[in-house]
Amino acid sequence: MRAVSLLLGVFRHRRAAARAAAGSEGVAVVNGAESLLRTLADAGVEVCFSNPGTTELHLVGALDKVPRMRAVLGLFEGVATGAADGYARIAGKPAATLLHLGPGLGHGLSNLHNARRANTPIVNIVGDHPTYHKPYDPPLESDIETVARSLRGPVRRPANVAAVRQDAVSALAEALEPPGQIATLIMPADVSWSDGVAADGDGNRPATPIRPVPPVAPRLIEQVAGVLCSGEPSALVIGGPLGREAGLCAASRIAAGTGTRVLLETYSSRLEHGAGLPSFPRLGFYPDQVLRQLDGVRHVIVAGTSVPVAFFAYPDKPSRLVPDGAQTHVLAEVGQDAVAALTALADLVAPDREPVVTAAGRPAMPSGPLTVDTWPAVIGALLPERAIVVDETISSGIGLSAATAGAPRHDVLAMCGGAMGEGLPLAVGAAVAAPDRPVIALEADGCAIYTLSALWTQARENLDITNVILNNRSYAILREEWQHLGAGASDPHTNRLLDLTGPDIDFVGLARAFGVPGSRASTAEELAEQFARAVAEPGPHLIEAVIPPVA
Amino acid sequence: MRAVSLLLGVFRHRRAAARAAAGSEGVAVVNGAESLLRTLADAGVEVCFSNPGTTELHLVGALDKVPRMRAVLGLFEGVATGAADGYARIAGKPAATLLHLGPGLGHGLSNLHNARRANTPIVNIVGDHPTYHKPYDPPLESDIETVARSLRGPVRRPANVAAVRQDAVSALAEALEPPGQIATLIMPADVSWSDGVAADGDGNRPATPIRPVPPVAPRLIEQVAGVLCSGEPSALVIGGPLGREAGLCAASRIAAGTGTRVLLETYSSRLEHGAGLPSFPRLGFYPDQVLRQLDGVRHVIVAGTSVPVAFFAYPDKPSRLVPDGAQTHVLAEVGQDAVAALTALADLVAPDREPVVTAAGRPAMPSGPLTVDTWPAVIGALLPERAIVVDETISSGIGLSAATAGAPRHDVLAMCGGAMGEGLPLAVGAAVAAPDRPVIALEADGCAIYTLSALWTQARENLDITNVILNNRSYAILREEWQHLGAGASDPHTNRLLDLTGPDIDFVGLARAFGVPGSRASTAEELAEQFARAVAEPGPHLIEAVIPPVA
Repeated sequence: MRAVSLLLGVFRHRRAAARAAAGSEGVAVVNGAESLLRTLADAGVEVCFSNPGTTELHLVGALDKVPRMRAVLGLFEGVATGAADGYARIAGKPAATLLHLGPGLGHGLSNLHNARRANTPIVNIVGDHPTYHKPYDPPLESDIETVARSLRGPVRRPANVAAVRQDAVSALAEALEPPGQIATLIMPADVSWSDGVAADGDGNRPATPIRPVPPVAPRLIEQVAGVLCSGEPSALVIGGPLGREAGLCAASRIAAGTGTRVLLETYSSRLEHGAGLPSFPRLGFYPDQVLRQLDGVRHVIVAGTSVPVAFFAYPDKPSRLVPDGAQTHVLAEVGQDAVAALTALADLVAPDREPVVTAAGRPAMPSGPLTVDTWPAVIGALLPERAIVVDETISSGIGLSAATAGAPRHDVLAMCGGAMGEGLPLAVGAAVAAPDRPVIALEADGCAIYTLSALWTQARENLDITNVILNNRSYAILREEWQHLGAGASDPHTNRLLDLTGPDIDFVGLARAFGVPGSRASTAEELAEQFARAVAEPGPHLIEAVIPPVA
Repeated sequence: MRAVSLLLGVFRHRRAAARAAAGSEGVAVVNGAESLLRTLADAGVEVCFSNPGTTELHLVGALDKVPRMRAVLGLFEGVATGAADGYARIAGKPAATLLHLGPGLGHGLSNLHNARRANTPIVNIVGDHPTYHKPYDPPLESDIETVARSLRGPVRRPANVAAVRQDAVSALAEALEPPGQIATLIMPADVSWSDGVAADGDGNRPATPIRPVPPVAPRLIEQVAGVLCSGEPSALVIGGPLGREAGLCAASRIAAGTGTRVLLETYSSRLEHGAGLPSFPRLGFYPDQVLRQLDGVRHVIVAGTSVPVAFFAYPDKPSRLVPDGAQTHVLAEVGQDAVAALTALADLVAPDREPVVTAAGRPAMPSGPLTVDTWPAVIGALLPERAIVVDETISSGIGLSAATAGAPRHDVLAMCGGAMGEGLPLAVGAAVAAPDRPVIALEADGCAIYTLSALWTQARENLDITNVILNNRSYAILREEWQHLGAGASDPHTNRLLDLTGPDIDFVGLARAFGVPGSRASTAEELAEQFARAVAEPGPHLIEAVIPPVA
């Protein structure tokens, strides 16, 4: 996969540069905490999103001594883990997190789930009691390994200070295994505080070789080319690294040369979008939508993502969303080099075709009360150059992709795992990774509450983020789902568990209380004026965009 | 243990009463979701603290149909789980939680850890995809069992709708196993939505007999009596159910009769405190404090809690905090009937002694700037009758116990597991359990941020809670711990990861934004005026008490 290749390139380059720099730090003997941070910094990890406790204090002390590793404080662990996800998606390399035992990892778990679904590499550092202290079952004794293993990534625990370096480089190498993993390094406090390791040495070289992104067999590419040239109707479903320019262009050439319809996965880790790029519809969220999108095709070709499945199950609806009678062809599994495979496929089936790109063009500026139809047009009309757009708009964001298709080229980061509450932290991480780019966080009201204190981190780090909270005062997606599921006889619009009124939440007040300037918009004119101002001013801003609930 | 016995009594009584009531609901065929809620309601579970998603919508629909089960919405899962802990401590019986797959359980995990350490029974209901949908690995597919097992409680997953009732009663019975457990019931969505079970029937009778609280062997009690009468210096460390009146009185009689020094565990699940009750010092937080408290004793007798261990480990400090040469005697393990044992011991060694109780009396009202010394005196001077005090004051609360010892009798709920962020949710649960009692939540600033949206639930449910946020604008406990650990050469007061300024957090603004009236106090006079008003008015209030950081 291109993303991981790029990342490994950066990683290797940084490591060499950092090792040269580290030389000037001398060869003093350091403790385990400092050894860990130096090792990760030498390997190119530059940021540690942190919410430490007592068992991590030697690591906090070591962060003082290794200024190459930037420490960013979150007031809740889910802010730290979601920020690490957003950082890696933009920086192209992993960040570390610093979390406090099992409960801290627990608080961070939901956004680590989302990161796993985005195939984002992360190295969690989780402090623990010293090994000798654990059998006494003190109050914070917890089963960190088990919680970490639920993420299906590697879990390491250095047995002593001499093992720290090797475990750190191994964890980092494992995090970077294609397509990217959540690696967890449990640091017993006595390993952190024990001295005895030279500050620099051969131990910094990863002993675990980093596995290259596996290529797709040429024969498979030729087979798929045969399918596409058969004249039978087909669809190409792309995702993962194909959401960036090279993949989008290859897909567009294939569409132009063969008439295949191209569809994007529903939620992309990082999608390049806007004027000058090919643009494709996303697979719908509901099974019926997907089956309509694939109606009539005889072949579904999948690359860089999974075969379409229903996000949720519904009574009497299928799970696997491939039409009856259609054949599925997996061109590139998640973790294979999908960009090279799709480019090779395009060269076979459409050697002379150019990609069809979206012309520059912005929607007309709407006027009057904000609705789910008008707010995206305001954003499309005013999106700044080189923006990073974080999209956790859920039910309110239907019109966003169309409204921004001709806007200046930008990256879109979606929440990939379905666990609400990643948008504001993703924006933190993206802004730390790209301080020269404006970050626009488009966030549903219900989602924003889970990780609200991300606003404080935005303020403390003076991050250039414009948060737009789409406030429909409900869990609107659950009202929609209620209808799809037939979840009950009563009207979901009157169900108090799906309703966020009584009291209404004042997002402007929440922002200001966390040090972020806030304003409220109820009309397109207000949103336009406030959005333009927020983007023009440095530092974070929040706009509460009040919209009616979806009917 | 008395607490659990009481709880089982309530449980059995409620079950019989509820079964009679259920008859009037008819014998209609219902789906799995409704069968689950009826079963739990029949068994006496009255509240479900909820943060549902799509896979729980049939359970949301069923909550509409089973009004005996009150649904309380939290906007973050840690609010729901912490509230379930607070509810059970006051109600003497478990609540249910409703959580969304692995990520929802993850967000709830930290306060479930705290609940486990408080030996609180809870039944988590976690929705999941239908079994047939899981192999397709949809985005929210997660390893719920593994996350739940980290809590070391039972985990059940009904295989079909016919199994729901038995699994529900078994999970509840397991939650109630002495001393109390976190039971998790995973409800696949198709089990929730499938019909086919009669609404009422024999299935409501728990097939798993509820195990009585195991008694302590009389011989052991006699042995300990022998130790106490030996004339050698001894200390009695009590906790768990001994924090309530019967246990405190037994301990006081023993102290009066034998001269043994009595110490309370550091953090109590529920401590009865105030005028007319015996009052004892709590074990200190730091090893040196505990060893000083136990200095010179030859025997340490432990009942209802664990043998003293260090909360955290420190270089060159012991983990087990029993003085060298002292002998440990466990009178009653956690989960045994400590109240009966200690009462029997008192009858043996102090048959004619009365407990020594604290006289009514309040501290003088202080004046001037608030400090860690003056704010507790304000609370002690003004604590209302029959209060429930939630104590998550961490480093700011040193003086609280002394300042309230002569105040009107009240319950104190501490955060037992060391995972910050339970105070505001505990207050929600306590207030739902005891709507006729004033709840006072005393909360450190750093802790409050983790579960801030508990304030919204307080407002929605119009709960009679006075939140006092002790705002020292730092993780002051970590600055203290830094000194104890020798975590680094630099000054922890300048470390940005331990500092909550830049920007300062405006807790008054946060409260108002969530619908809770707020005010700020910087002097004792202001706190007194605001506290008296907040307690006098119905519904929730928040006072931000600005105090200087601990030096």
